[in-house]
Amino acid sequence: MRPSSELVVGFDADDTLWHNESIFEHSHERYRELLSRHHDAATVDRTLFATEMRNLELYGYGVKGFTLSAIETAIQLTEGRISGEEIRRLIELGREMLAHPVELLDGVEETLAHLAGRHRLLLITKGDLRDQERKLAKSGLADRFRAVEILSEKDESSYAVVLRRHGIDPARFLMVGNSLKSDILPVLALGGAGAHVPYRLTWAAERAEAPRAPGRFYALESIRAVTSVVAALAAEQA
Amino acid sequence: MRPSSELVVGFDADDTLWHNESIFEHSHERYRELLSRHHDAATVDRTLFATEMRNLELYGYGVKGFTLSAIETAIQLTEGRISGEEIRRLIELGREMLAHPVELLDGVEETLAHLAGRHRLLLITKGDLRDQERKLAKSGLADRFRAVEILSEKDESSYAVVLRRHGIDPARFLMVGNSLKSDILPVLALGGAGAHVPYRLTWAAERAEAPRAPGRFYALESIRAVTSVVAALAAEQA
Repeated sequence: MRPSSELVVGFDADDTLWHNESIFEHSHERYRELLSRHHDAATVDRTLFATEMRNLELYGYGVKGFTLSAIETAIQLTEGRISGEEIRRLIELGREMLAHPVELLDGVEETLAHLAGRHRLLLITKGDLRDQERKLAKSGLADRFRAVEILSEKDESSYAVVLRRHGIDPARFLMVGNSLKSDILPVLALGGAGAHVPYRLTWAAERAEAPRAPGRFYALESIRAVTSVVAALAAEQA
Repeated sequence: MRPSSELVVGFDADDTLWHNESIFEHSHERYRELLSRHHDAATVDRTLFATEMRNLELYGYGVKGFTLSAIETAIQLTEGRISGEEIRRLIELGREMLAHPVELLDGVEETLAHLAGRHRLLLITKGDLRDQERKLAKSGLADRFRAVEILSEKDESSYAVVLRRHGIDPARFLMVGNSLKSDILPVLALGGAGAHVPYRLTWAAERAEAPRAPGRFYALESIRAVTSVVAALAAEQA
């Protein structure tokens, strides 16, 4: 496929289109309560995060890996004294996370409806394959996207593969997302543009410094502002 | 993309290119031993399988879902009396499965080397995204495939999406795999051809009756025989 000159817009999914980190935060709260007889909240959080980072290469992102890491950490922090019933509750907690309703963020529906008629939109997300597909189906937004890419990691090389596969010139690509690390920095590095719409919570593993890339990096307060960024970028080289 | 008339060959991965079910079988053995104080092997197997089937819609395929189902079943079968240390061993067992070396099946390397120079080859597999990518990377076979599709389910509609995406006419598509249910039946239903190369073990959830589709279904004893099937099909409409 030859790169086309039309502007293509990529959207992240979790915490960009719908709530996700808030579901994890709720699970963390219940996890701290479960272990509160054994350790203070800071120790629980720190140890769970260390387990998650240690397992990330093997498990990848998503709820199943989180649940396994939470069970492992609970055994470690209780020196094996955690009960079968308590572990059963952790498994149930993971299942509730997977079955959680998809709650769209404010402005998402209108913004996508506006843009989908004018530009090629891609969904580019990472995590468990089935979980991401299920959330997209539940969201009612699937029809807005020309293609869906579920990746095991969002870095420069995985974006490069996606852009090549869809015949997209990086200079005519804008990525919209809540994570500077996963949605913005790798796309800027490839010569594309990035619109950062922060979510009220950011998982520690996704934190990064804001980049300096004038004319290619947009820090937005709401996804609604994406329409004007897209209009400006589309006009630039039309 | 317009469908092309060249013959395209799809390959399943687990138990078609490399050993997989044997790794699960080994884990099942260790699992039965772990629970042998509580229940006989048949009860353990039956209960674990029932848990896996109940969780399949939510967890999808792969080692992480298996591990979670194994922990859940162990708690159930011991009425919560399983120890933290025993559950830690189940998590370790899951990690060993993910980190297991990739062992190619006999004839795979030569067959793919022969075919890759002559036809467009696709890898079409299901399971955990990161785990399947890791196995492909470890296998040394990635360069043989023009594209890799990791699906959450292999059924008629997911094959139809893949064939459309790659501009493949189903009548010019041959799928090679060990599972009648996931590799052969959906492709035959779409009007394609299927070459079934059984593995010595078949997971109960993948069992199915052999189809009747003369001229489009090939029951093979070894992946080496795929080259003659491909040559015959390619000659048919060349």
